Amino acid sequence: MKKIITLSIALLTGVFSFAQQALWGGQEIVSPQINENNAVTFRLNAPQAVKIELTGDFLPTQKQETPFGTFEAPGVVTLTKNDKGVWEYTTPEPLSPELYSYTFIIDGVKVTDPANVYMIRDVASVTSVFIIGGDRADLYKVNAVPHGTVARRWYNSPGLNMTRRITIYTPPGYEAGKTEYPVLYLLHGAGGDEEAWIALGRTSQILDNLIAQGKAKPMIVVMTNGNAGQEAAAGEASEGFVKPSFMGATRMDGDFEAAFPDVIKFVESNYRTLKQKSGRAICGLSMGGFHSLHISKEYPDTFDYVGLFSAAIMPREGVQSKVYDNLEGKLKIQFDKKPKLYWIAIGNTDFLFKNNVDFRKLLDDKGYKYTYYETGEGHIWKNWRIYLSEFVPMLFK
Amino acid sequence: MKKIITLSIALLTGVFSFAQQALWGGQEIVSPQINENNAVTFRLNAPQAVKIELTGDFLPTQKQETPFGTFEAPGVVTLTKNDKGVWEYTTPEPLSPELYSYTFIIDGVKVTDPANVYMIRDVASVTSVFIIGGDRADLYKVNAVPHGTVARRWYNSPGLNMTRRITIYTPPGYEAGKTEYPVLYLLHGAGGDEEAWIALGRTSQILDNLIAQGKAKPMIVVMTNGNAGQEAAAGEASEGFVKPSFMGATRMDGDFEAAFPDVIKFVESNYRTLKQKSGRAICGLSMGGFHSLHISKEYPDTFDYVGLFSAAIMPREGVQSKVYDNLEGKLKIQFDKKPKLYWIAIGNTDFLFKNNVDFRKLLDDKGYKYTYYETGEGHIWKNWRIYLSEFVPMLFK
Repeated sequence: MKKIITLSIALLTGVFSFAQQALWGGQEIVSPQINENNAVTFRLNAPQAVKIELTGDFLPTQKQETPFGTFEAPGVVTLTKNDKGVWEYTTPEPLSPELYSYTFIIDGVKVTDPANVYMIRDVASVTSVFIIGGDRADLYKVNAVPHGTVARRWYNSPGLNMTRRITIYTPPGYEAGKTEYPVLYLLHGAGGDEEAWIALGRTSQILDNLIAQGKAKPMIVVMTNGNAGQEAAAGEASEGFVKPSFMGATRMDGDFEAAFPDVIKFVESNYRTLKQKSGRAICGLSMGGFHSLHISKEYPDTFDYVGLFSAAIMPREGVQSKVYDNLEGKLKIQFDKKPKLYWIAIGNTDFLFKNNVDFRKLLDDKGYKYTYYETGEGHIWKNWRIYLSEFVPMLFK
Repeated sequence: MKKIITLSIALLTGVFSFAQQALWGGQEIVSPQINENNAVTFRLNAPQAVKIELTGDFLPTQKQETPFGTFEAPGVVTLTKNDKGVWEYTTPEPLSPELYSYTFIIDGVKVTDPANVYMIRDVASVTSVFIIGGDRADLYKVNAVPHGTVARRWYNSPGLNMTRRITIYTPPGYEAGKTEYPVLYLLHGAGGDEEAWIALGRTSQILDNLIAQGKAKPMIVVMTNGNAGQEAAAGEASEGFVKPSFMGATRMDGDFEAAFPDVIKFVESNYRTLKQKSGRAICGLSMGGFHSLHISKEYPDTFDYVGLFSAAIMPREGVQSKVYDNLEGKLKIQFDKKPKLYWIAIGNTDFLFKNNVDFRKLLDDKGYKYTYYETGEGHIWKNWRIYLSEFVPMLFK
């Protein structure tokens, strides 16, 4: 055998490496580079480019005027080119622990960093990401702890007349044991889907880490698709590689809330779950907060734990759905049954801040008990990861 | 409630859409656009760029001289800029059914298409993708058929002294039934990991579709990580967001093969499987073909179906492992036990073609029975998707 076979592993490696570079321009550039002091250096090999800029959520924001008002937009910095054509920028200060997003701007075109394979998609935008560890951000990392299982499955929803994709996290040890677990239903916002909490929310990492630290009870986390018109996330449905659009299949017409028992039925007949109110929690961000509000009051005996994260609490005028009728009457029924936790979280610059102030006033006026958690900043995933990692430790105790 | 809440859904939508564009430059450009005749138009909004090019595996190849010999590299075309600053290129001919990859080159920098969220990662290179349907390529699409479950789990490997990540496909109906299923162990190549066959190989789509068409038996597919030094795919291990490298954690020292019973033990104690030779298949591409060759002969009573896809059949000189000792003796034991299928597939321009010719000559000389399947082209995922979709229908029958 040895004689008739001549290629060596070294050659195999060489050919592949070359082929890859030739085909796709694999760059040996390191970017981003997290320096020892947690300042970060970004690099792009672009000898022929006229101008390379960088924008990211770690840069000081700048005011931007729009038809909807003045917004704080992430700043833009210009990189410096060296004599080899490599452009570079290092943050002047160390970055604090967080999962950060950025893109390069190559002669005016926003693109991900070709030297960084780690990206997240939010609706139709893809950005490069990196994590500065420490503090809470260590929850967002994969650590050397027992890991749960993440499964993408399909369930039948007679209520929406569709087979639908669903993402389910089961905690470490689930498969080997016989324990019945509590369940957290975790809902995404408009523009999201059953991938959003896993990809942008770092749910499996947060759960693995909180459970390993003994701060959270082992639980199942169910991430369904909250767009009543959609069977699955972008690229995962029979419609093909369609470009995702904000509110594309999102109807907010009450159908998703009305059909939610289909999800619970699927989960409770397919997993070892605690099938009582004290074993179920529901929470969601933005539209998912709105869904959580309505689902939890529509089925007042189902959830003992409710979380509204930056909830899009707003009337659905012109929408005919029993779900949205008689809100105050249904809230009374829900709160008379005393849920163990009704948790409202929002950032103080969120454009939905006033809606949440008004909703809390309604609850206050009625004497309904809830817990309020306010952070800085606005309607961003940074806050939703914080809210998830605050909410989960309070559940099922 | 209605009076105190003033934001409308319309405003919410508007604000989000704007914010997204402002933050990340979401473009309303459509790219790629698959035209009615299956010619494809690519567009990039880049008014300030000097030159926009495109490279992709659908363009005529061009010869490229390298230290390793002359290679056929994908061609490069230049896009044409219109008066609005949008660059465009349409393929002169319709494209035949296939999953295609491409990147733009913006003033010399290779990047993915910012208007297309669909991408695949191969080692450290990310490319944009699209599918032209029809013929075999319909197997690569998500169709309106029953879907299996894809789970990412972790298993304990005493042989590698590690907890390791594994991807497992279970066929439609698995959870609801009591059937015991056969298992295909599907191995990736050097530079790959437990995500490669799912992402680049379209395994779950191919299996869902072949099962729905009645062409394949329902089966479990196990995609393990073949890099003996690695616990999980890039970004999924405690080492963090490390840049993947070709052969980085790949050792090809026999340890992966020697520890393979850990994988089988995990699968057979966690899933309802047929626990006999006729219920097990193993195949793999490149390094995974090498692994399949060695694992199947090392455990000659375990697999009745063996597939070598563009297998990297080469001696491991200087490597001390019992696994690589006495190849011919062990092959004799394996073939004396008459596996039901020993399938060798390769493209006729593959740089490993001669290695496979030589290996087939060895089998021929000994009179060992195998089936040979030759395609055009070389060491590329297009071929490996073809081989998977040819191999799977022959299994467990």
